[in-house]
Amino acid sequence: MFLTETKRFHFLLLLIILHSEVEQAYAVWPMPQQMSQSTDRYPINPQLLAFSYARDSAAQSGCSVLDAAFERYFNLIFPDFQLTMPVFSFLLYFLQYFVNKTEIEDFPRFQFRGLLLDTSRHYLPMPAILKTLDAMAYSKFNVFHWHIVDDPSFPYQSRNYPDLSSKGAFHPMTHIYTQSDVKRVIYHARLRGIRVVPEFDSPGHTQSWGKGQPDLLTSCYKGKVPSGTFGPVNPTLSSTYQFLNGLFKEVTSVFPDSYLHLGGDEVDFTCWRSNPNVQAFMAKMGFGSDYTKLESYYMENIVNITAALNKTSIVWQDVFDYRERIPMDTVLEIWKGVPADYRAELGRITLAGYRVLLSAPWYINHISYGQDWRNAYTVQPQNFSGTEQQKKLVIGGEVCMWGEYVDATNLTPRLWPRASAAAERLWSDEEKTSSVDKAFPRLEDFRCTLIRRGIQAEPLFVGHCKHELDRLVVVH
Amino acid sequence: MFLTETKRFHFLLLLIILHSEVEQAYAVWPMPQQMSQSTDRYPINPQLLAFSYARDSAAQSGCSVLDAAFERYFNLIFPDFQLTMPVFSFLLYFLQYFVNKTEIEDFPRFQFRGLLLDTSRHYLPMPAILKTLDAMAYSKFNVFHWHIVDDPSFPYQSRNYPDLSSKGAFHPMTHIYTQSDVKRVIYHARLRGIRVVPEFDSPGHTQSWGKGQPDLLTSCYKGKVPSGTFGPVNPTLSSTYQFLNGLFKEVTSVFPDSYLHLGGDEVDFTCWRSNPNVQAFMAKMGFGSDYTKLESYYMENIVNITAALNKTSIVWQDVFDYRERIPMDTVLEIWKGVPADYRAELGRITLAGYRVLLSAPWYINHISYGQDWRNAYTVQPQNFSGTEQQKKLVIGGEVCMWGEYVDATNLTPRLWPRASAAAERLWSDEEKTSSVDKAFPRLEDFRCTLIRRGIQAEPLFVGHCKHELDRLVVVH
Repeated sequence: MFLTETKRFHFLLLLIILHSEVEQAYAVWPMPQQMSQSTDRYPINPQLLAFSYARDSAAQSGCSVLDAAFERYFNLIFPDFQLTMPVFSFLLYFLQYFVNKTEIEDFPRFQFRGLLLDTSRHYLPMPAILKTLDAMAYSKFNVFHWHIVDDPSFPYQSRNYPDLSSKGAFHPMTHIYTQSDVKRVIYHARLRGIRVVPEFDSPGHTQSWGKGQPDLLTSCYKGKVPSGTFGPVNPTLSSTYQFLNGLFKEVTSVFPDSYLHLGGDEVDFTCWRSNPNVQAFMAKMGFGSDYTKLESYYMENIVNITAALNKTSIVWQDVFDYRERIPMDTVLEIWKGVPADYRAELGRITLAGYRVLLSAPWYINHISYGQDWRNAYTVQPQNFSGTEQQKKLVIGGEVCMWGEYVDATNLTPRLWPRASAAAERLWSDEEKTSSVDKAFPRLEDFRCTLIRRGIQAEPLFVGHCKHELDRLVVVH
Repeated sequence: MFLTETKRFHFLLLLIILHSEVEQAYAVWPMPQQMSQSTDRYPINPQLLAFSYARDSAAQSGCSVLDAAFERYFNLIFPDFQLTMPVFSFLLYFLQYFVNKTEIEDFPRFQFRGLLLDTSRHYLPMPAILKTLDAMAYSKFNVFHWHIVDDPSFPYQSRNYPDLSSKGAFHPMTHIYTQSDVKRVIYHARLRGIRVVPEFDSPGHTQSWGKGQPDLLTSCYKGKVPSGTFGPVNPTLSSTYQFLNGLFKEVTSVFPDSYLHLGGDEVDFTCWRSNPNVQAFMAKMGFGSDYTKLESYYMENIVNITAALNKTSIVWQDVFDYRERIPMDTVLEIWKGVPADYRAELGRITLAGYRVLLSAPWYINHISYGQDWRNAYTVQPQNFSGTEQQKKLVIGGEVCMWGEYVDATNLTPRLWPRASAAAERLWSDEEKTSSVDKAFPRLEDFRCTLIRRGIQAEPLFVGHCKHELDRLVVVH
């Protein structure tokens, strides 16, 4: 009721104020590589505005992705245009838009600018994911890393293995992603220039897999008898690899992206150690008591399965740390440690010639009081000891929103605009964006832009956004 | 679109499942003083359910507050009743409710269980405030401490001093609370057993007041000339007290509660010291260079104004720390320090015979990663050195949500269920609620109850709520 009143009221206000008020230009975020703006202001007529393809552009008229983007951005630039035109055309006289003459030349610093959502620790309903994709595009993220399954739940509804979600999801009917849900996410992302990289993390983080796939997980022993609990995927059985081959075959056909994230992090060896069959396998393979060799054996097998499906593997850094023999095109993702640690790891991985993604300083699920976006902003992904060649192997980074304490109730304000700080680091020239204090007012402005576009981004500090009351939804 | 589909889907599911599923009893939060529950389950018919007044109850049939509460709670207990009855009456056969035979005797441990919202650092639209009142009632909070104005903005639209908001609010028309807004908040609160205590904090925290009330604030000097900036309220002018008398007269007629919060915290003396007129006043009054005496002088004056209006003052602890002569019925609110500090302050204030409110450990705007509700839960408000008589002077406490980093985008998930942890501490028996680990599953349950009632309370840990997808709103 209040919202309606407020909206109507704003409307009357438009009549009174807009003829005298010139809307301020909004800050551009992330900072373009080159931008020159003159103080000359020109009135623009929305009806005459046109987007156009450059003559030498690879894309030309008819490119469906860009044509759809032009339409979306027209509505973002002139949010009141459709609202006012048909019924209230007399308002147009007052609705005057201006633009400063501006030239922008732009390209990303890093090719891989990812954001991870975790839909296993809490289920995220489809609108929350689609909304996140919208907001990602506004910050020029271009990879949605979908950490779709993990220990707590298995919401991916597999065509070939339906028991995985019917037994492993929080709820078999409501807390799942159907094939059509996944298609919709991929479609929505594609139109926004975002690729979707799914992660099927194993051999650890797979408790939920075991419910719908008997014999997949290692049976843990207490003394000489099974304890009734289960550990990581059992790497000693050929049935394991048959199943994974089947699952990955399906997954790589559903997700068209050239990358598949295989996980490989945090494998606890306790259960493997307890199991006599695993012990026997270790002896047979000559692994001694070094269970990292068993993990390597497993990871090499699934990386090879993935390669045979013509996909490139991404894995967490643990896989490199255990010195596994993995194809040179595998991408390693760094998630551990304080700056000194991840810098050393950046050096080691790139020295070995692997491409690397940096996530460690962008675990955005970690929160602290105040302006913690500043930490995300001041990361220097290429500031480590190494040659120029090594630096080029840093292909980008990822903001990770792990789901222990996050679901659809708090996802959006916790992500935005904090993730946007990392987004500028991944997109913009480092020298031109070296001052966190100069970034602050631009990011505040950008946060208001997000609010205006319907993203419930939280405030950076005291103040208000001009359009916050039109766009905000509080259900009552 | 997704929501609609999901809802329709749930509906079909009801037909299939509900005849065999018995809904689990929800945990009671905060823990009642006495509760005995038998394992006997009885089916209940919503149409025959009746709330009734005890024979010896002071309230009897016709009490409008309780009658309205009965109606609200009927709908909370049977959320699907109205939905299913008119159109889908055939469903009733399947919708079977059960209740365990339960006897509860209950009363609050502390009489004053408050929650502070700060509507100056960010404006909170009316629906956000009303929603918070709903959620407060669910956790048995009974005081809404409305920190309505402060340095950044003055959203209270005064009848007698309209310039205060027209010049001091973030926006003179949209970012204000009109007289009818305030009435609506008070009405909404009253029906939920919540009193509304407004705070007009002075002499510090008043920058926004100065915009609409010239000469109220102290003009700061740089050397012998005014610097153009302003400090706290000018305590040396009789016009100051005339204005405050007028404002408080209005405010105490608008807000019917017997308390008025006068603030009195964090007064910076730099500006007072710089001003030659203030210096002259100090000399005339014999205050020497002790500016705490000037502050005392000011606070005593406004506490007396308040007393003359038949209201009881609440002030922040600073007022006691400066040893001001204030009426013995004044309530002191403790906001400073780590546990050792606030315990000592509890001892000092109660030893002097004043009633006290504890807020220091419940600054819930401070966030940290993980389950920080545990800190709020383990507070022991009466655990300080003092007599039994002193302990009784602790009349309660307040959860404070200061607004530096909070507005309507993130208020609800940041408040709930974290504030509910403090609510149980303020309501329930301390010994019966001494285990934070035992509280955890009950609070998780209660969080799901909040979700079911439409409050976007954030998760405590990994998992899901049964009704989360029906109630959740993500705008797309």
